[in-house]
Amino acid sequence: MDEVIADVIPKFLKLYNRDFGTALDIEQTPGKEVFELIPEDVNRKWYEYINEPGFFRDLEPIADSREVVKKLHEKYDLYIVSAAMEFRNSLQDKYDWLRDHFPFIDWKHIIFCGNKIVNVDILIDDRIRNFVDFDGRKLLFSSPHNLLITEYERVNNWKEVAEKLL
Amino acid sequence: MDEVIADVIPKFLKLYNRDFGTALDIEQTPGKEVFELIPEDVNRKWYEYINEPGFFRDLEPIADSREVVKKLHEKYDLYIVSAAMEFRNSLQDKYDWLRDHFPFIDWKHIIFCGNKIVNVDILIDDRIRNFVDFDGRKLLFSSPHNLLITEYERVNNWKEVAEKLL
Repeated sequence: MDEVIADVIPKFLKLYNRDFGTALDIEQTPGKEVFELIPEDVNRKWYEYINEPGFFRDLEPIADSREVVKKLHEKYDLYIVSAAMEFRNSLQDKYDWLRDHFPFIDWKHIIFCGNKIVNVDILIDDRIRNFVDFDGRKLLFSSPHNLLITEYERVNNWKEVAEKLL
Repeated sequence: MDEVIADVIPKFLKLYNRDFGTALDIEQTPGKEVFELIPEDVNRKWYEYINEPGFFRDLEPIADSREVVKKLHEKYDLYIVSAAMEFRNSLQDKYDWLRDHFPFIDWKHIIFCGNKIVNVDILIDDRIRNFVDFDGRKLLFSSPHNLLITEYERVNNWKEVAEKLL
């Protein structure tokens, strides 16, 4: 979900801006996580933000994600698989967010987990740790933190996913 | 979780008793769901009960489940896989319940889903619908509703699971 269909970075920047006056338009250095670009004395605050109820509830969908995921859903047996389990307070928010923005995906096709031990053919993900034990086709969805990684098939946006899979 | 490690039937009976004075010790006819033994005019109430926040929070663990699951966890790469996604209000409750009763299972090994499309070798479940697309070893955990099913390897309780897998 995060950084693939849910745009989480602007939310972090908004909260850092609110609390510490950091810039809202920080451009992420390729290969760096967003919190690595925030002054060191306050950057650990991300962990508090992400644990606040509501953090995941009002994120914007990533550009074109709804349209392309809907078409993929019509062609494939599509699942949303989110490593939500790390953050207890994210579960209801993520569930409600999916109901709002991806209402065509029923509850049987939503998975909140830790390790993504799912039996699927294609995995679209921004985190290569989820590819390690996965034998199928891996599509690395571009996000600033993964831009230096070269050993996987890459999709830079949902339009490119559509070109490859539709 | 439900009817395998979490004892959900007594909770239903308690609520039916509270609201309609039905017996607390209804013995389930083999092959029947609990709500099929409640008078027809009120038995649909189960759907309201199960959607109430808190319903899953105070269930008793099934006998010997904690001890045997702990030993399985030491021997195997063990996951808790619950079809929790059907009930939005169950997510936090189930998460908190697991933290209380199975604290040795970390978040990476918990999966809330609909369809159980997990890539595992052994699946212990009380619902045969979860076995349909599963190629590994299937252990049907006895619950009144599944007692008439004969075509799967059966475990009647956690002691029998221990005998087979430990």
